Amino acid sequence: MNQINQVMLVGGTHGNEFTGAYLIKKFNQFPYLIQRPSFETLTLFGNPKAFEEGRRYIDKDLNRCFLSQDLQDPTLSSYEELRAKAIYQLLGPKGKSKVDVIVDLHTTTANMGLSIMLSTQHPFSLRLAAYLSSINPLVKICWARPERGGVLLRSMCELGFVIEVGPVAQGVLNADWFQKTEELIYAVLDYLEGYNQGSIPQTNSTLTLYEYVGIIDYPRNELGEIQAMIHPQLQFRDYEPLNPGEPIFLTFDGRAIAYEGTATVYPIFINEAAYYEKGIAMCLTQKQHVTVA
Amino acid sequence: MNQINQVMLVGGTHGNEFTGAYLIKKFNQFPYLIQRPSFETLTLFGNPKAFEEGRRYIDKDLNRCFLSQDLQDPTLSSYEELRAKAIYQLLGPKGKSKVDVIVDLHTTTANMGLSIMLSTQHPFSLRLAAYLSSINPLVKICWARPERGGVLLRSMCELGFVIEVGPVAQGVLNADWFQKTEELIYAVLDYLEGYNQGSIPQTNSTLTLYEYVGIIDYPRNELGEIQAMIHPQLQFRDYEPLNPGEPIFLTFDGRAIAYEGTATVYPIFINEAAYYEKGIAMCLTQKQHVTVA
Repeated sequence: MNQINQVMLVGGTHGNEFTGAYLIKKFNQFPYLIQRPSFETLTLFGNPKAFEEGRRYIDKDLNRCFLSQDLQDPTLSSYEELRAKAIYQLLGPKGKSKVDVIVDLHTTTANMGLSIMLSTQHPFSLRLAAYLSSINPLVKICWARPERGGVLLRSMCELGFVIEVGPVAQGVLNADWFQKTEELIYAVLDYLEGYNQGSIPQTNSTLTLYEYVGIIDYPRNELGEIQAMIHPQLQFRDYEPLNPGEPIFLTFDGRAIAYEGTATVYPIFINEAAYYEKGIAMCLTQKQHVTVA
Repeated sequence: MNQINQVMLVGGTHGNEFTGAYLIKKFNQFPYLIQRPSFETLTLFGNPKAFEEGRRYIDKDLNRCFLSQDLQDPTLSSYEELRAKAIYQLLGPKGKSKVDVIVDLHTTTANMGLSIMLSTQHPFSLRLAAYLSSINPLVKICWARPERGGVLLRSMCELGFVIEVGPVAQGVLNADWFQKTEELIYAVLDYLEGYNQGSIPQTNSTLTLYEYVGIIDYPRNELGEIQAMIHPQLQFRDYEPLNPGEPIFLTFDGRAIAYEGTATVYPIFINEAAYYEKGIAMCLTQKQHVTVA
């Protein structure tokens, strides 16, 4: 990496996640806010039709449409599949993207604070992440191995990442999270400017990284109907340690169901509304301390 | 009113309001929980198709389809209009409903606690409301004049009322609110049983009633796009006094917009997700103290 030339900010990839959607509208109205001397900042409104309808998506989750083979499959023609192909035309093929960094703005109903979701451990991304978490205690850094991330919009670019903000209800604009996300974006852009200028801010040399290791689905019956809720003791406890034997679900008739793993994990995306249909009650992570070069 | 013979509990009138939907599922699985010696308790799952799709509605808000003239209009045939007609067939005409009490279970993204939304000031309803608010400080009582309520499912029955629970995100099942709502339903059923048995619990003789007096929409541009967010100082402050000159909105460029009314009001449904499309940023109420006969 010699120089950052183009950065793309994306919002509204999910039509009912308003923070990113309205930030993109704001940046389009006041473009000077995201301009920096040494690189160009572009904006993209991910799924305008879903936003108009106040839904996550029309036919299919747009943020699962970016597998390379799907982008080149002429038989795929739902609204979101066509939208993904249009974005692919705009950005160019994976690994040769016209933009150097993609920042895709999401919200979640889980208590994720300001989460940076990485799909690589590229040293550049880790340094940026270490910097962001050093200036704001709400910032958490997650990492999932690339094989899972290949369907996401961020995967169009090696330095692409997602910002997940919450808890925020779907279809709601929360001013506090709007402002916190906006400040975080400016911190990212200022860092990139510093990089280009050869003056990266000093930061910690270790980074706390939450590595995705698996998921837990809700208990379901043979019809697929859920049979239990997130336990009140776990609700909103994202990034806190969960030990074997501690309750994770509460059945409708009041029986607690314990976590049956063998080691302490750190759940995230606990009770994310959009994940009920994906068979995910929470994602599990392991907490790591990484030395940043 | 001589005797309560039939009570109908309704959930899933909006498909993405899970508390009521899963409570109805629970009651269908364990019907003894809602049976009482002196009356029959029925359940109704309002909008099963919208629930399957995790949306508020398919074509049209079901809880705006119960105007008498619409129920008798053969040209109305969207999914929800037909569903409303089917419920009308089940319950019989307004004023002659086969059930004596309807309890329609909703959730809201606003900080409404456990809100009882009345459409009449029938002495029976006021006494029930006074009792419920006396046993649980989370219970608030709202009243809107009937001309607004004629489109709601609860209007099928003189003693119909809505329970609004929140804040809960759409599409999320929150165990804590699930249990609180369940307890409130049992309190309602026990009260009705007491009424039939001639042993209504003693309660306060005054009731705090929040009377609906109007709405405020978001500031919008000529395209209808919202231009400001609920001000952080107002967010989650449902039922708290709002005085003239206090901020209610924050524009995207950080400018506060003040409440321009002439008297103190008590906003509710502040930042309810489903009301963006209805042109409602909040509802305004006046706080009253009513003597219950």
